[in-house]
Amino acid sequence: MSHPVVGIIMGSDSDWPIMKAAVEALKEFDLAAEARVISAHRDPQGLEEYVRQSPARGLRVFICGAGGAAHLAGVTAALTTLPVIGVPILGKATDGLDALLSMVQMPPGVPVATVAINGARNAGVLAAQILATADPRLQQALQQFKVRLQEASRAKNQNLTS
Amino acid sequence: MSHPVVGIIMGSDSDWPIMKAAVEALKEFDLAAEARVISAHRDPQGLEEYVRQSPARGLRVFICGAGGAAHLAGVTAALTTLPVIGVPILGKATDGLDALLSMVQMPPGVPVATVAINGARNAGVLAAQILATADPRLQQALQQFKVRLQEASRAKNQNLTS
Amino acid sequence: MSHPVVGIIMGSDSDWPIMKAAVEALKEFDLAAEARVISAHRDPQGLEEYVRQSPARGLRVFICGAGGAAHLAGVTAALTTLPVIGVPILGKATDGLDALLSMVQMPPGVPVATVAINGARNAGVLAAQILATADPRLQQALQQFKVRLQEASRAKNQNLTS
Amino acid sequence: MSHPVVGIIMGSDSDWPIMKAAVEALKEFDLAAEARVISAHRDPQGLEEYVRQSPARGLRVFICGAGGAAHLAGVTAALTTLPVIGVPILGKATDGLDALLSMVQMPPGVPVATVAINGARNAGVLAAQILATADPRLQQALQQFKVRLQEASRAKNQNLTS
Amino acid sequence: MSHPVVGIIMGSDSDWPIMKAAVEALKEFDLAAEARVISAHRDPQGLEEYVRQSPARGLRVFICGAGGAAHLAGVTAALTTLPVIGVPILGKATDGLDALLSMVQMPPGVPVATVAINGARNAGVLAAQILATADPRLQQALQQFKVRLQEASRAKNQNLTS
Amino acid sequence: MSHPVVGIIMGSDSDWPIMKAAVEALKEFDLAAEARVISAHRDPQGLEEYVRQSPARGLRVFICGAGGAAHLAGVTAALTTLPVIGVPILGKATDGLDALLSMVQMPPGVPVATVAINGARNAGVLAAQILATADPRLQQALQQFKVRLQEASRAKNQNLTS
Amino acid sequence: MSHPVVGIIMGSDSDWPIMKAAVEALKEFDLAAEARVISAHRDPQGLEEYVRQSPARGLRVFICGAGGAAHLAGVTAALTTLPVIGVPILGKATDGLDALLSMVQMPPGVPVATVAINGARNAGVLAAQILATADPRLQQALQQFKVRLQEASRAKNQNLTS
Amino acid sequence: MSHPVVGIIMGSDSDWPIMKAAVEALKEFDLAAEARVISAHRDPQGLEEYVRQSPARGLRVFICGAGGAAHLAGVTAALTTLPVIGVPILGKATDGLDALLSMVQMPPGVPVATVAINGARNAGVLAAQILATADPRLQQALQQFKVRLQEASRAKNQNLTS
Repeated sequence: MSHPVVGIIMGSDSDWPIMKAAVEALKEFDLAAEARVISAHRDPQGLEEYVRQSPARGLRVFICGAGGAAHLAGVTAALTTLPVIGVPILGKATDGLDALLSMVQMPPGVPVATVAINGARNAGVLAAQILATADPRLQQALQQFKVRLQEASRAKNQNLTS
Repeated sequence: MSHPVVGIIMGSDSDWPIMKAAVEALKEFDLAAEARVISAHRDPQGLEEYVRQSPARGLRVFICGAGGAAHLAGVTAALTTLPVIGVPILGKATDGLDALLSMVQMPPGVPVATVAINGARNAGVLAAQILATADPRLQQALQQFKVRLQEASRAKNQNLTS
Repeated sequence: MSHPVVGIIMGSDSDWPIMKAAVEALKEFDLAAEARVISAHRDPQGLEEYVRQSPARGLRVFICGAGGAAHLAGVTAALTTLPVIGVPILGKATDGLDALLSMVQMPPGVPVATVAINGARNAGVLAAQILATADPRLQQALQQFKVRLQEASRAKNQNLTS
Repeated sequence: MSHPVVGIIMGSDSDWPIMKAAVEALKEFDLAAEARVISAHRDPQGLEEYVRQSPARGLRVFICGAGGAAHLAGVTAALTTLPVIGVPILGKATDGLDALLSMVQMPPGVPVATVAINGARNAGVLAAQILATADPRLQQALQQFKVRLQEASRAKNQNLTS
Repeated sequence: MSHPVVGIIMGSDSDWPIMKAAVEALKEFDLAAEARVISAHRDPQGLEEYVRQSPARGLRVFICGAGGAAHLAGVTAALTTLPVIGVPILGKATDGLDALLSMVQMPPGVPVATVAINGARNAGVLAAQILATADPRLQQALQQFKVRLQEASRAKNQNLTS
Repeated sequence: MSHPVVGIIMGSDSDWPIMKAAVEALKEFDLAAEARVISAHRDPQGLEEYVRQSPARGLRVFICGAGGAAHLAGVTAALTTLPVIGVPILGKATDGLDALLSMVQMPPGVPVATVAINGARNAGVLAAQILATADPRLQQALQQFKVRLQEASRAKNQNLTS
Repeated sequence: MSHPVVGIIMGSDSDWPIMKAAVEALKEFDLAAEARVISAHRDPQGLEEYVRQSPARGLRVFICGAGGAAHLAGVTAALTTLPVIGVPILGKATDGLDALLSMVQMPPGVPVATVAINGARNAGVLAAQILATADPRLQQALQQFKVRLQEASRAKNQNLTS
Repeated sequence: MSHPVVGIIMGSDSDWPIMKAAVEALKEFDLAAEARVISAHRDPQGLEEYVRQSPARGLRVFICGAGGAAHLAGVTAALTTLPVIGVPILGKATDGLDALLSMVQMPPGVPVATVAINGARNAGVLAAQILATADPRLQQALQQFKVRLQEASRAKNQNLTS
C-alpha cells in the first residue's frame, strides 16, 4: 500500500464524516487514497490544477462527494478522462434529491458514476472494482470481500430476538 | 443599443428556442445581449475564457440556461463576480426538478439568481432590473413595462367567452 | 456604511435566525440593510406601503424570506421594479419544496431571483453583486471576497483527520 | 339567477378552458358567477380593487385559478374575509406540484380552500356547498345533485365491454 | 356559544395535538365545535352514522384531519352535502405528500376544501368564513380578526435583534 | 370457469382500458372475475352493498382501480376481511404519486395490497397467487406461467437488431 | 400454532424493529412465522435456496422488508409463485420513496403486494387475509379483529381532553 | 475490435432503442459489446448463468438498463465482482424516479455505477473510461474524444439564428 491511486475530493470538510468511509473501503483492498477539500465553486482553479496533474501523480480514479447543487463530480469529469464516481451528500432540504439529481443527470459524453446518497463506502468498493478490471489479485480480493459480505449477512440472524 | 451588456450562455443549441426569449426581453429595454453555446462539461476551458474576459469587453450580467445536471450557471458563478442568472431547462425526466435543484441549491458565497423552469423571458427582465439599479432611464423603462403588463393582463378579459 | 440600500423583508420573526445571515453578508461589503417583518398575507397594506416608498428612501434591492406558500417575494416583485431576491425557508413539511416552488415559478414579466433553500447568506452576496454592476469599489470588494472564499476552502484541508 | 354571488378570478386567459367548469357547475345550482382575468403579479391594484369592492356588489365567495407560483388565491385571501377557493392549474413543469403547494400551504390566519389540480368543477360545487350552509333550497339542490352523481356512476357500468 | 356547529373528525387520537388548534380558532369566533375520533378505515359505520345524523343535530361544516392514506375527508364528503374541510397530517414518511394528495385530489362532484399540512388552525378560520357568508356579526368578527393579524405581524418587528 | 371469484371495482369507466388487463390475466388461470364501476365518492352505498354481499356470492378477492385521491381500495378494505388489491391509475398531474400514495399508505389493521401504477395485469396475477395458496392445481398453473414468462423474456433477444 | 406458514425476510437486522410487527400481527391470528435476515444483494444464493425450499417446508406466503434500492421483495417474487408482500423501510434519504418505488413498480407477471412504508403490521394482517381465503376459521378471526379495530378506534375518544 | 468486453443487459426489448446508444458509444472506442434481454424478474436463472459465466468469456464490465422497479443492475451486481453500470429507463409514471432510485440507492458492499435517466450513451463512455484505467491506448482515444466533444460544442454556435 504505497502511493495513492484514488483521489477523493469533497466540497467541504463537513462532508468528511461521510466521505472517509470511501478511504476505509479502499484500505480493505490495500488501495491508498488521498483526500482533498476542493470546492468546485469556491476554488475552481485549485480543482482544475488538482484534477489535471493527478494522472501524472498516479491517480487512476476520482471519487467526489458533495451536497446541494453538487457540481463537484461533474466539473471533475469535465476535466479528466479518468472515471469519476459521485457521492451525493444528504443536506437539510429536499431529502438528498438535490445532490443526487445534480450528480447523476450528466449530459452525453461526460458521465459521473453515481452511487447512493451518502454511499461513500460503495464509492470505495466501486473504485476497487474498476481497478480490478486489469488486476487479477484485486479481482480475487473482491471475491473474498463478497464472501465476507455473505457471511456477515448470515451472521445477523443471531440478532433477531423478539 | 450598441455593444452587448448581457452574456447569454447555454449548454446546447437545443436550449436556444427557450433562451432566445431572454434576448427578446432585453431588446424591449434597448439592452444588447450576446448569445453563446458553451457547455460547462464539454468545453470547460472555453467557458472559463469567455467568462473571465467578458467584463473587460463590457458585459455586466450573465444569463445561463441548462437542463439536467445544470452546472453551467454555478460554474459561471464560480468564475466571476458579476451577477449570474440561471434558467433551468425542462428535460424529459424528473419534470424539471433536476435542472432547478442543480441551479438553485448553490453553497454559501457563490449565488445563482434562479428564475422559473424555462423562464428565460424573466431572466432578461431580471437582468434589466439589475442594470437599472444604477440607471434612472432604464428604471423608467421598467416602470413603463409594468404598466404594459397591467394593460395586457386587463385586455385578456375580452377572451373569456363561454 | 450610512443609510440602508437593501430592504430585507420576512414573513415572520421566526425567519430571522435564517435571514440575519443576509444582513451579515452585506456588512462584509459595507452595505447597510434594514430588516422588517411584513407578512404578505397578514399585512398586505403594510407591505405595499413599505415597498412603494422604499426607492425614495434609497433602497435599491429587496431580499424576501418566507416559508410554505411563500408569496412574499412574488408580491413584492409585483409592486416594484427593483430586483427582488427570494430566500425559500425550510418548513416542517415537503422538505422545502413548497417555499422553493412558490418563489421560483413566477410568471413572465415579474421575476424573483431565487437562491437556495435557507440560503440567506447568498441573498446578501447576490445583492452586493447586483449593486456592484455600477460600483467599481464594490466590484473590487467582491473580488477580494472570492479570494477569501478560496483561501477558506483550502484551509479546510487541515480538518481531514482520519 | 340574477346577479353574481361568486367571483371567479384567474391569472391568465389561458386558464379559462379549465376555469369555466366552475361557472358551469354553479349554473347547475342556479348560482351566477362573474369571471375576471386579474393577475396578482401583473395587476396587483386591479386585484385589490376588485376584491375589496366585491362584497358590496353581492359576491360571497371567491374562486381563484392560477398555475406556477400561484399566488392569486393567497393574495385574494389576504384582502378579504370571504371564503377563497383555490384551483391549482397544471403547467408544463413539476407536474402541478408548484401550483398546488403555492396555494395550499398558507400560513395561520389566512386559509385557502384548495381543491384538486385543475379541479375547477369542484370549486364550483364547493362554493355551492358553502352558500347552502344558510340556504335550505340550495341544500336540497345539492342533495339532488348527489343522487345524480350516484346515478351517473351506476350508469357507467354499461360501458364495460371487453 | 351554545351547541356545536362544526364537527371535527380525526382518524386517531394521535391527531388531536394538531387538530385542537381548529377548536381554538373557532372559539375565537364564539363558534362551538365537537371533536370525534372516527377512523374511516376502522369504523366506517360509525363514520356514516355520525355524518348522516349531524345536520339534524345542527352541524353545518365538517373538519377532517388524517395522515397517510388520508381518506377521512373524502369519505365524509361522499356522505354529506355540507362543506368538508381537510387537514392533511404530517407523518413519518413522504413529508406530508401522502396525506395532502389523498385529500386534495378528489374527483369531480365531491370536493374537499384542503388546507395546509398540519394547518388545523386555518381549518377553523375557514369554517368561520364559511358560516359568515350568511352571518353579518360573524363577518364583522372576521374583519376584527384580520386587524389583529395585521397588528400581531407588525408587533413581531420588535424581535429582530441582531 | 364458472362463477366469478374475483371482484374488480373501478372508480370510473375511464379506468376500464387499464383495468381489463386484470380480467385477462385471471382468464389465463381459468379464474372468472366480475367488473363493476362503483365510485367510493359518488356511490358509497352502492360500494358498501356490493362489498358486503360479495363473499356470500362467492367472491374471495377484490381488485380496486382508481386514480387521484384513490380511496376506493381503502374504503373497500374497511368493509371486508377479504384481501384487497389496489391498482393506482395514472392521472394528468403528480405523475401517479397521488393514486399510489392514496392506496399504499393505509393505517395499521386495514391493508391494501398495492401493485404498480397502472399495473392491473399484476393485480390479476397476484389474485391468482392468493387463491393458489390453497389450490394445488392453480399453484401448478402459476408455475407454468412462470416458465412462459421466462421463455417470452428469452425470445425477445431476437428483436435486438441494430 | 405449530409450524410456520409465513416466511419473513429482511435485508438487514436493522429492519427487525420494524419487521417484528408482522410477526406480532400473525400471532394474533395464531399463525406462526419464521424470520430471516437474507440480503438479496449480499447473499443471493442464500435467498434463492431459502425461497425455493420454503414451500416444501410449509410456507405459503412471504413478507419481505427492505429499504433503499429495496430489491428483496422483487427478487423473492421472481423465485416463487407464492404471494410476496413487500414492506418498504424508511431510510435517511428520499423520505421512503426509494424503497416504496423499488418495491411497488414491478413489471407485468411478477407482482409484489406492497403495503405502507414501515407498514409491517399490515403485512401480517394481509398474510392472514390471504390464508383466510381458504380457511373459514381464520376468516372468522379476521371478522373479530375488525370488531376490535372498531372498538379501539371508538375508545380513543376518551383521550380528547382539551 | 474482436470479442466483446462489455455485456449489455436489458430488462425488455422495449429498452433497446435507448440502450443501443451504449453499443454505439463503445464502438467509437473500438470496444465490442454483446447485448442481451434478460429480465431479472422473469428469468433469474438466465441472468445468474449469464453473469457468472461472462468473466471467463472475456467480459469485464456490465451495463444494465431497466425501468420501473429496476432491479436488474442491483441483482447483476450481487452476482459479480465486475463493475456494473446502471441506466435507469424512463417509464410512464413517476418521471423516471422509480428506476433511478431503484438503481442508485444500493446498500453498502454492492455498488451500481448509475448514470442519467435514459443515459445509455454515457454508460458506454463510462465503460470505456473504466477499461482505459489500464489501457494507455484507450486513454488516448478518450482524450481525443474529449477534444471532439469540445469541437462539437463550439460548432453549435452556428445554429443560434434568431
